[in-house]
Amino acid sequence: MTSLRITDVRPWGGPATDLHVVDGVFVATASSPDAEVVPGGGRIALPGLVDAHAHLDKTSWGTPYRPHSAGPSLASLIDNERAHRGDLGPVRERVGALLDRHIDRGVLHVRSHVDVDPQIGLDSVTGVLAAAAERAGRVTVEVVAFPQSGLLTRAGTAELMADAIDAGAQLIGGLDPAGFDGDPIRHLDTIFGIAADKHVGLDIHLHDRGTLGAWQIERIAERTEALGVRGKVTIAHCYALSTVDDVRQGALIELLAAADIALTTTVPGTTPQLPLARLAAAGVRVGLGHDGVRDLWSPYGTGDLLDKALALAVASGYRQDDDIERTARIATEGGARVLGLPDYGLEPGCRANLLLIPAESLVEAVTQRPVDRTVIAGGTVVR
Amino acid sequence: MTSLRITDVRPWGGPATDLHVVDGVFVATASSPDAEVVPGGGRIALPGLVDAHAHLDKTSWGTPYRPHSAGPSLASLIDNERAHRGDLGPVRERVGALLDRHIDRGVLHVRSHVDVDPQIGLDSVTGVLAAAAERAGRVTVEVVAFPQSGLLTRAGTAELMADAIDAGAQLIGGLDPAGFDGDPIRHLDTIFGIAADKHVGLDIHLHDRGTLGAWQIERIAERTEALGVRGKVTIAHCYALSTVDDVRQGALIELLAAADIALTTTVPGTTPQLPLARLAAAGVRVGLGHDGVRDLWSPYGTGDLLDKALALAVASGYRQDDDIERTARIATEGGARVLGLPDYGLEPGCRANLLLIPAESLVEAVTQRPVDRTVIAGGTVVR
Repeated sequence: MTSLRITDVRPWGGPATDLHVVDGVFVATASSPDAEVVPGGGRIALPGLVDAHAHLDKTSWGTPYRPHSAGPSLASLIDNERAHRGDLGPVRERVGALLDRHIDRGVLHVRSHVDVDPQIGLDSVTGVLAAAAERAGRVTVEVVAFPQSGLLTRAGTAELMADAIDAGAQLIGGLDPAGFDGDPIRHLDTIFGIAADKHVGLDIHLHDRGTLGAWQIERIAERTEALGVRGKVTIAHCYALSTVDDVRQGALIELLAAADIALTTTVPGTTPQLPLARLAAAGVRVGLGHDGVRDLWSPYGTGDLLDKALALAVASGYRQDDDIERTARIATEGGARVLGLPDYGLEPGCRANLLLIPAESLVEAVTQRPVDRTVIAGGTVVR
Repeated sequence: MTSLRITDVRPWGGPATDLHVVDGVFVATASSPDAEVVPGGGRIALPGLVDAHAHLDKTSWGTPYRPHSAGPSLASLIDNERAHRGDLGPVRERVGALLDRHIDRGVLHVRSHVDVDPQIGLDSVTGVLAAAAERAGRVTVEVVAFPQSGLLTRAGTAELMADAIDAGAQLIGGLDPAGFDGDPIRHLDTIFGIAADKHVGLDIHLHDRGTLGAWQIERIAERTEALGVRGKVTIAHCYALSTVDDVRQGALIELLAAADIALTTTVPGTTPQLPLARLAAAGVRVGLGHDGVRDLWSPYGTGDLLDKALALAVASGYRQDDDIERTARIATEGGARVLGLPDYGLEPGCRANLLLIPAESLVEAVTQRPVDRTVIAGGTVVR
């Protein structure tokens, strides 16, 4: 039995207390006078940050800087990646470098979409899984088999996505069934079909805005209900929700809530943000993601999910403490509910995954994002 | 004569070179074998960052955290500030703490709007000037006498703004002549009148959006031309420019260029960004500002202008290197042109105000914003 006592910490920025851990799990009271002590020094304790929408396989983290080489269109971005991803070096090494950064910042759970296509096969999936396995116990990685280069428009991709599940991926992805792949009904029927065959959930990229996107949300909700996969479907980005009128938005949120479809945002720079308060009121689960980090799509990203929490707060126009605190909740508990993480939190019985941040308040943790953090995973200090 | 050699630096991220300084000014070639050496180590050299729109007097930097206490309306924000600003402690100390942070990050020039009203008189102006004087040679601060609580609607404010110039402020401010102060023509005539009497320039807050703001831009341009103050007027925020149609936007940009009116942006979270490329093509000067830092208006802000450069790049939807580099130029040269800073830059003859950043490229300096910087002001290493 190993015991840990984390003294003088403030869970969620609240009153100071001690946290007790036995065999990697929080317990209510100290069990051993010989417990290892981690002095909290009055710092804020948060459960591990959850990156609910990543593209680990694309990152160039740890490799030399290279100028952005794609044009502005989505097609150009995808073609540029297919042309140059081979130059970046092994997936396993790049992903490992980024996961090390995540651990360093307290990002202890990641859901990553990973490209699957006939050119690259399952190499990226196996590379990501290998990098994650090397860091087992410190960070968890859930893999979505993602048809980045098209599903219907790239023959053989659907079969590879099914194979990816057999190789260890946990979810089936999708990508703009109408706007990119060109045949929304066949696209959705295909991915829901694979997911049903494999008894896994889905996480579908949907950038399509306005009424086109809204119509696809309805189609996704229909299939979620019909196939009995309530609670197992996520829509990523979901720009449609913030680019339709208020009445349509309300109706869509009702559909999402009824089908228990989760959403993830990566805080777009030039699209209105998700209506977080309205989603929260309806009980829709929302997670936060870092999206790509320094890759062939853009040079942005730091690997610190609190940077995204700040961006979300600013872009949402928040000033009140409880609003800004909501973004920290989305970056932690919100993502955990999207991923369905068991035993997540700072309560007795939860796995002792947490970070300690030197900030006076939760708001300050978000606005200042100090990087000298203590990170504990499964009761072991890993940073 | 004091000499400095800064070896192996990459100006603007370009090829490595040595920079030579004599008596605080860059010179073309080494003049003394006894020069003090600052090893650049291949870092990027930028001239000092320029915060072209600050509210130094409002900051709570260096004081204990306090929850946000204002409601969402502009009137509530202003009333809340008037009720609580006395609790924050002496202006001089708070401003000094923030200026020290600025210097630490390489922000070496600041234009700050400073509140002037019958309740507070000139206390904030003299407090800011005192904190700046204590840091003379390390940072320059230009003060705008700012009618935060209303000009026409707060009797005695106009007279105090004139007094503020006598006390050391360099510019006359304004605030939403229509949307906040209620009488745009009388507001503009009053502030242009004071500026003409005192032979100083103007820097006018204009949040009013759409056609109301556009109409005021036209009135400001008329007065700038009629009173012969081309090149001495700035409009801050100028949300109207990004909330009118393209044709009107083009006509307004022509007016701004003709009157040589500068703009500053603080990267609003929920308003479209200024059309930077179109403004650059027309030759309109644009500077970047941090706006308030951790004050009664919002808890945001770090004192690092590169954080704002990143926000500007993301919110502008930039991915290309030259676009992202433009935001670094706006954070340096752009602001210097707005403030009319003499001898600004890394060329021989310029004052040796610079920062060294460990980044591979200028894009990476913006996206990653490493904080372990060397800062040199007037040829002296200050950090």
